[in-house]
Amino acid sequence: MSTYPQSVIKLINEFEKMPGIGQKTAERLACYVLKQSVEEAMQIAYAIRDVKKHIKICSVCFNVSESNPCHICTDNNRDSSVICVIEQLADLLTIEKTGKYRGLYHVLQGHISPLEGITPESLTIEKLLQRVKGDHVKEVIIATNLNMEGDTTALYMHKQLSSTGVRVTRLARGLPTGSYLEYANTAIVADAINCRSEMK
Amino acid sequence: MSTYPQSVIKLINEFEKMPGIGQKTAERLACYVLKQSVEEAMQIAYAIRDVKKHIKICSVCFNVSESNPCHICTDNNRDSSVICVIEQLADLLTIEKTGKYRGLYHVLQGHISPLEGITPESLTIEKLLQRVKGDHVKEVIIATNLNMEGDTTALYMHKQLSSTGVRVTRLARGLPTGSYLEYANTAIVADAINCRSEMK
Repeated sequence: MSTYPQSVIKLINEFEKMPGIGQKTAERLACYVLKQSVEEAMQIAYAIRDVKKHIKICSVCFNVSESNPCHICTDNNRDSSVICVIEQLADLLTIEKTGKYRGLYHVLQGHISPLEGITPESLTIEKLLQRVKGDHVKEVIIATNLNMEGDTTALYMHKQLSSTGVRVTRLARGLPTGSYLEYANTAIVADAINCRSEMK
Repeated sequence: MSTYPQSVIKLINEFEKMPGIGQKTAERLACYVLKQSVEEAMQIAYAIRDVKKHIKICSVCFNVSESNPCHICTDNNRDSSVICVIEQLADLLTIEKTGKYRGLYHVLQGHISPLEGITPESLTIEKLLQRVKGDHVKEVIIATNLNMEGDTTALYMHKQLSSTGVRVTRLARGLPTGSYLEYANTAIVADAINCRSEMK
């Protein structure tokens, strides 16, 4: 069986390593690169090169930025007394997009998962504790995912933070806006009942 | 709203231009590049550069290859009296993967579509006619897609090729293996009836 030339196979393999990209998609992307002009295709290569050249990890909050400390940590218009703790970078943008949060962040770079061999020490929790103790932080909002790993990580951090006297909150659990009770699963409805709030 | 740094936004935009990649996926891919080591990330950039550097379009069949004529056209073990005509590069690999075809190919680089302004002249049909007239070609298998554009292109080519005396065939139409009659649509079942064959 004759397949693509060597350099195309190499490109397909590189695309396939990316998350959510299967073989078919990788082939489609490689075909797209083949169809493009040299200039267009090289824009992708340059963009990757530039990201790796310019992007630094913020030594305060572990966000990515072209400066260190990052553009969020150094933004004087933000409320530095609140830190929102997230598992990963993508979660930061999700929260930023709401436009509802003006505090700082702390990227954990993962979640506690004994099964995957991820211990609290391999995350940035120690750095968070230092931030909370050293700065004038009043509240830590824990925004880990609402699954077992996220819950475990949240509980662990809550325990660690309790001695600091800082207010520790967590994102609300409940029924997602637009959903139907009929189709929600038991755990979600149970959460919604437990966390019910006064109507104003 | 604070978002990603400039170079990350540029990378997200480049990924988003690719087929089937929406904003969310582009962000996920960019986050993946951010997480990778410089060496790993640059492998993608190098793979793109190498493809654009080494890959040529075969002047005979319009396949992509690191040589011109391509590795299929120059393969002496293949039957050069049969040409399989396909719309695009990806279709070539799909056929190659079956291992059932040992002839040559001709990539049309699209399909006739008056609505999209794609005329027969913008495809490689003229080159195909030259190949058929010049070489010792006995059969042209038309393997365009089984939709309106593919059918139109197939009909047009059939008309053009009829004067050359070459045998013109088309991929079989019928029910796909593994399917249930109950769920097949009328057009598919009608094709399956029309193209029924003797049981042996």
